[in-house]
Amino acid sequence: MTKPVCFVMGAGAGIGGTAGMRFAREGYHAVLCRRSDEDGLNALVSGIREEGGDASGFLLNAVKDHVIEDQIVQVEEEIGPIEVMIYNLGAQIGNRELTDTSYKAFELGWRMATFGLFRTASVLLPRMVERGHGTLIVTSATAAARGNAGQHSHAAAMGGRRLLCQTLNAEFAAKGIHVAHVLVDGSVDAPDTLGKMLGPERYEALRSTKGAVDGLILPEQVAETYLHLVRQHRSTWTFELDVRAYNDKPWWN
Amino acid sequence: MTKPVCFVMGAGAGIGGTAGMRFAREGYHAVLCRRSDEDGLNALVSGIREEGGDASGFLLNAVKDHVIEDQIVQVEEEIGPIEVMIYNLGAQIGNRELTDTSYKAFELGWRMATFGLFRTASVLLPRMVERGHGTLIVTSATAAARGNAGQHSHAAAMGGRRLLCQTLNAEFAAKGIHVAHVLVDGSVDAPDTLGKMLGPERYEALRSTKGAVDGLILPEQVAETYLHLVRQHRSTWTFELDVRAYNDKPWWN
Amino acid sequence: MTKPVCFVMGAGAGIGGTAGMRFAREGYHAVLCRRSDEDGLNALVSGIREEGGDASGFLLNAVKDHVIEDQIVQVEEEIGPIEVMIYNLGAQIGNRELTDTSYKAFELGWRMATFGLFRTASVLLPRMVERGHGTLIVTSATAAARGNAGQHSHAAAMGGRRLLCQTLNAEFAAKGIHVAHVLVDGSVDAPDTLGKMLGPERYEALRSTKGAVDGLILPEQVAETYLHLVRQHRSTWTFELDVRAYNDKPWWN
Amino acid sequence: MTKPVCFVMGAGAGIGGTAGMRFAREGYHAVLCRRSDEDGLNALVSGIREEGGDASGFLLNAVKDHVIEDQIVQVEEEIGPIEVMIYNLGAQIGNRELTDTSYKAFELGWRMATFGLFRTASVLLPRMVERGHGTLIVTSATAAARGNAGQHSHAAAMGGRRLLCQTLNAEFAAKGIHVAHVLVDGSVDAPDTLGKMLGPERYEALRSTKGAVDGLILPEQVAETYLHLVRQHRSTWTFELDVRAYNDKPWWN
Repeated sequence: MTKPVCFVMGAGAGIGGTAGMRFAREGYHAVLCRRSDEDGLNALVSGIREEGGDASGFLLNAVKDHVIEDQIVQVEEEIGPIEVMIYNLGAQIGNRELTDTSYKAFELGWRMATFGLFRTASVLLPRMVERGHGTLIVTSATAAARGNAGQHSHAAAMGGRRLLCQTLNAEFAAKGIHVAHVLVDGSVDAPDTLGKMLGPERYEALRSTKGAVDGLILPEQVAETYLHLVRQHRSTWTFELDVRAYNDKPWWN
Repeated sequence: MTKPVCFVMGAGAGIGGTAGMRFAREGYHAVLCRRSDEDGLNALVSGIREEGGDASGFLLNAVKDHVIEDQIVQVEEEIGPIEVMIYNLGAQIGNRELTDTSYKAFELGWRMATFGLFRTASVLLPRMVERGHGTLIVTSATAAARGNAGQHSHAAAMGGRRLLCQTLNAEFAAKGIHVAHVLVDGSVDAPDTLGKMLGPERYEALRSTKGAVDGLILPEQVAETYLHLVRQHRSTWTFELDVRAYNDKPWWN
Repeated sequence: MTKPVCFVMGAGAGIGGTAGMRFAREGYHAVLCRRSDEDGLNALVSGIREEGGDASGFLLNAVKDHVIEDQIVQVEEEIGPIEVMIYNLGAQIGNRELTDTSYKAFELGWRMATFGLFRTASVLLPRMVERGHGTLIVTSATAAARGNAGQHSHAAAMGGRRLLCQTLNAEFAAKGIHVAHVLVDGSVDAPDTLGKMLGPERYEALRSTKGAVDGLILPEQVAETYLHLVRQHRSTWTFELDVRAYNDKPWWN
Repeated sequence: MTKPVCFVMGAGAGIGGTAGMRFAREGYHAVLCRRSDEDGLNALVSGIREEGGDASGFLLNAVKDHVIEDQIVQVEEEIGPIEVMIYNLGAQIGNRELTDTSYKAFELGWRMATFGLFRTASVLLPRMVERGHGTLIVTSATAAARGNAGQHSHAAAMGGRRLLCQTLNAEFAAKGIHVAHVLVDGSVDAPDTLGKMLGPERYEALRSTKGAVDGLILPEQVAETYLHLVRQHRSTWTFELDVRAYNDKPWWN
């Protein structure tokens, strides 16, 4: 029998890849898509298969025309119906003053964070509606809740993403599609993103100071919450929740 | 060995009692407190015991001086450390115009929804801090997010409750105490509250129209989410989430 | 002819008294109420009269039974219809940990910030409805938007206040009554409140550092915005706005 | 002496053109820019000149490369420093289901509502910083606060706009630039936008039902609030306010 598919758009070594692995353990076929690092992608897929799970990996450039749409259609045709989409493309480029934020960077943020989600929803949600069920989990960020200095590109893109999730929810919840917006409010213990942004030394320093055990948001714990969202009965759906480390301040403080 | 205690303040036949039963199944001693209906309380306690769980029931009037405090201290001394507190006292009195909202009703709303939580936190959280862990889940309502016509008492009380939860989180999260504010955004399939407010006929009509299966928020499903909150690793705590039925509109729409 | 009355509940040397003076210049009879400091009150009243304006001053303890209600009725009978109510009672008691926040302090915060406003609205708004017009401006604080460490009493009280303003607006806007919630998001250059909390030395130090010219929120400038709110045509009413000094961070940053 | 310039991006017969006329009366040179309807533009400019004010009108397509930037530079060089920018480009396309919302419409919404503002800020704010002062008023919409059914393009664009305003404020307020986000929460009595969307018959029907006097938001009243925002002393700046008709429901109800 065909396994339900959990499609992860943006499957690096942080939340995306980890969530894919977690869902594979629950009987999903994990489809992992990322832009680069074929070795990293292969390692994720192999890791899942070694555990006895099913996984497929694809390199794709989500901002290119047709790429998202074609990949979704291909997966549905060749692997199976996408039951869970985890839209996990980030758009954080660090703090940059307005004059250091190029038009290109601003537009790229929108293409990754907002338009890519719109494209994904446009092709996938009608298919889910036909089947009468499906879940779209969107990994989001502090910048989806409020703008802050240097976050021109990121906040504009994520603010758009959050309200897009609300419009999708408004149209699709009653049709049986669960849209969830997850506000990841803090640093995630992820070598691919935080590690690259900080560089190896500062990343390790942060990990040892804040405590890699629980002072950074752990991807495997985020995956548990994603799994809970998918398991929620439709009488009791969560649209939005925040996650942060216990010793971190929430964005409103 | 002593079981950890899950203390439910406001344990009727809806979210409170159901959550108590769910936590009992997970190995907690459920302490169920409610103001009235001794038979209903006994039925809940018996139901848990028949399943092989541990439970104790107490009738108490939470707005009376010392009652909350004494009950918490007594439970900690005689049953065991309270690991999970589910503060589930509601304060909905239906829609009333300003001139029909008595000072007494307005104050009672605050005593139930806001001050009672403050009293609970004042006696319990320092104990949890000494132990280094504990969870306080607060059942909240649409009226915690925004005021609406006729909700003078309820919204003022719940708005205070939500921001109180934020102050508690700001002080206690870093000390290892998980505070979670759950925005129950819709009608709950609960005979004790919704049923009483509507009367048996309108309640049954609503259940059959909206669909008792999933058109009302099901207490047993809310309990699953509460359990997930308690299980969250402290690297990845949720402070706030909403729940609503798939076919209901969120408060912002 | 009787002048319209601008009633200021909480008329110290900061926003309250300054707004009273500003409205007196616009032809209102300023009714200034405060709890203590008869000399300060008399100075405010005299200052207005010396400018050629009309003013009356009353000492009252707003948390006592009947005091608010009786004062409003008396003013309406003896001075004239209250066209503008500026509810300016604060409830900031500085940062206190939970265990240092007494039940009494918590309740007093609610009585000042939330219940006092409810009582004021209960007696005044039906009178305004009969006249078909009137404005209720509520001075509010950062703590009305989010809780923060040590703000247990203040945030619970102000959070309740904000949502109460929303319920009042929901019932009374369509009846011609303008309710406005003003989020004063920062320190006000007010000797009676900030000055007392900091003590004279720290207050002067802050004023000279942040710049008394424009680094603290100036009461006379808040009064200009209050006047604008009152002048807004009812086709275009503002329910909520924030004010802060240009060099201060908003609460969400 | 050169008059300060009030530049209106999106100057139709509604808020934009009306605000231009209002600022002209206060001594500003009104620069009115719009995409089409040269006759309408000329009528606005003539109207201002007939009152003794100064105005210039330009037709421009704001989504084209360089157009915004060139126009701002040209105005600063040939007319004078832009003291007030009113960014008034809307992006409402009515309610459309997801499958009826083309990629092109979604992108156009972003180009008008979000990217155009970013481009405007990128070229203008550094100039204002050099001068040490300036005001950027952004006309915004309900959809900037929350998504709703059919508003996929609009809400994503406006949600991005609102958080972009917050990032601009975070960087530029302390440098003396006042950024204000005005949430126009309801229908505006504007023939160019509401009138076109509804068609003449439904527009007149709405005007006669809701009452053209005050049941729709009147552009000339919005202009008064814009003027107040510009006049605010920098000790007491408002970043965000809402406006709506007294008999309309706020977005949160």
